[in-house]
Amino acid sequence: MTTAVIALNSEQDFFTIREHHVAGLRASFPTVRFHAVADHQLSEALAGADVYLGWRFETQWLRHGLGLRWFSTPSAGTDHLPVPQIQAAGITVTRSFGFHAQPMAEHAMAMILAFSRGIITSSRLQRTRIWWKEAMAEEFFDLAGARMLIVGCGSIGSHLGLIGHAFGMQVTGVRRTLPTGTQFFDYVHASQWLDHLPAADIVVNLLPESPSTVGMFNAAAFTALKPDAVFLNLGRGSTVDHQAMVQALHDKPRLRVALDTTTPRPLPRKHPLRRHPRVLLTPKSAAFSRSYMDGALRFFAGNLHNYLSGRSLQGLVEETALHQLEGTH
Amino acid sequence: MTTAVIALNSEQDFFTIREHHVAGLRASFPTVRFHAVADHQLSEALAGADVYLGWRFETQWLRHGLGLRWFSTPSAGTDHLPVPQIQAAGITVTRSFGFHAQPMAEHAMAMILAFSRGIITSSRLQRTRIWWKEAMAEEFFDLAGARMLIVGCGSIGSHLGLIGHAFGMQVTGVRRTLPTGTQFFDYVHASQWLDHLPAADIVVNLLPESPSTVGMFNAAAFTALKPDAVFLNLGRGSTVDHQAMVQALHDKPRLRVALDTTTPRPLPRKHPLRRHPRVLLTPKSAAFSRSYMDGALRFFAGNLHNYLSGRSLQGLVEETALHQLEGTH
Repeated sequence: MTTAVIALNSEQDFFTIREHHVAGLRASFPTVRFHAVADHQLSEALAGADVYLGWRFETQWLRHGLGLRWFSTPSAGTDHLPVPQIQAAGITVTRSFGFHAQPMAEHAMAMILAFSRGIITSSRLQRTRIWWKEAMAEEFFDLAGARMLIVGCGSIGSHLGLIGHAFGMQVTGVRRTLPTGTQFFDYVHASQWLDHLPAADIVVNLLPESPSTVGMFNAAAFTALKPDAVFLNLGRGSTVDHQAMVQALHDKPRLRVALDTTTPRPLPRKHPLRRHPRVLLTPKSAAFSRSYMDGALRFFAGNLHNYLSGRSLQGLVEETALHQLEGTH
Repeated sequence: MTTAVIALNSEQDFFTIREHHVAGLRASFPTVRFHAVADHQLSEALAGADVYLGWRFETQWLRHGLGLRWFSTPSAGTDHLPVPQIQAAGITVTRSFGFHAQPMAEHAMAMILAFSRGIITSSRLQRTRIWWKEAMAEEFFDLAGARMLIVGCGSIGSHLGLIGHAFGMQVTGVRRTLPTGTQFFDYVHASQWLDHLPAADIVVNLLPESPSTVGMFNAAAFTALKPDAVFLNLGRGSTVDHQAMVQALHDKPRLRVALDTTTPRPLPRKHPLRRHPRVLLTPKSAAFSRSYMDGALRFFAGNLHNYLSGRSLQGLVEETALHQLEGTH
């Protein structure tokens, strides 16, 4: 009999598993024993487990020689987890995807439209000025016809691109592997991304952290940006050279930046990005969704079917030898 | 020979006609004499004109017995113009539509997403708090699955509804005349609008000003709103009872309001809406678009074709007897 341990606990209730989710799994998989546990019970609970679905993984759990075969996380990224160590212990690691797309596309559009329609400026000036039409006339821009470049265009980017398409934007997605079949917008290969950067009015960074993406948005990339571009980071902070970004905000007085993630996170109190009038920060809230757990459990249930029937798992995290990661942080 | 006078001058360059627009009209209509004039030349220029395309109309111009047959304005609404007086002088009045939809739908989505993703709160807290994930977790909501009611759903509302559809929202449009044929979302008749108000998460007011719409959003309507609704006004200030709106903000501590138009406009410096933490004001900037004049001239050219060939005009403003408007302001 397969034993699955679940620890999905969070300060946010929408990132926390509910009774009905566990009941649903038990009804769908009568041959699997499910244990939903609190974080402090995890170390003990994992001793007899085959499968673990959770947010956290501590390297010290591996000391006792776990019998675990598969670790699944609802996160889209795995850079916060000790993946090489887990894999070295013979445990398969999967990330999740699909259900992050809805809230993250909404968040990205909120950031873009906040700049394009002068929302932050207006909310400030409504308190101090009797009228501020001129300030708005200067700041706004049309989304219809604007060019949006989505760097790291997987399931999140594809959904964002579709919404951009509905706004009449010209969307280009950057990927390592180009999709086949009919698409709603154009894709270009990652090797050519710098050629497409100078034409973009809006650049959305959705890159995961990997040895090849760390520091990808460097000084050269920020120099290539349009002087009045809007740059978003909803990927990982480490993919952006923050010093180069601060310099670009200085060199390009119409550049606007919105960040859901930074390095470090949170930024120190006196960091220049915090009080910059052309910078919007959100507290890693882009994936916030009241239906997050429903999506996460649906994805896990599909993968558990694969696991039990011996099919290959969705969201497999590539094996990374420990030494490959050295020196990239 | 037909003579057309054009006075499209504004402090905003995108609301101002350019040389190439006039040249385009001359090339398309060789039998029409076009005079593009400054506002102070208007009174004199109109003396020999058949057609007038402009932003303004002063009642005193009618004293001299104008030979004018048609007055066309690029505005979507005509409440700021002395329409009954112009019509009483035998002059046909047309408003314009179609090209306002793109910027206004973008503006409405910017307002909705500013609340749904906590953008204004974040932009404030990024300066003062080290981390504010809890505040965001409380404030945000998902657009996917949310119900949007568009009151006064003409060409602007239909475009907004389509974009809402792309976000996975459940859209309902309120109209006086229901459209025929296949639609992307549901329409209901204006007489039933109050029945649909209590279910809406987002209510977008796009009503024009007319004897039947003035004060339509009254105390009863605000009472019917969901306690955590988002209410937008991009129509006319006079369609909303502002005192009832302020009261509703007090009675419903999760109600959020975004207004591109108010009565009076601008609001007095000490007006309670100005500093309210759940109110966003924009300075009548919802129709701002760099391509506004292109759209306005395209619409006018199409209508000029109708005029010259004796076909009926688009955007005809219904004849309103002077006495009908008395007492509605």
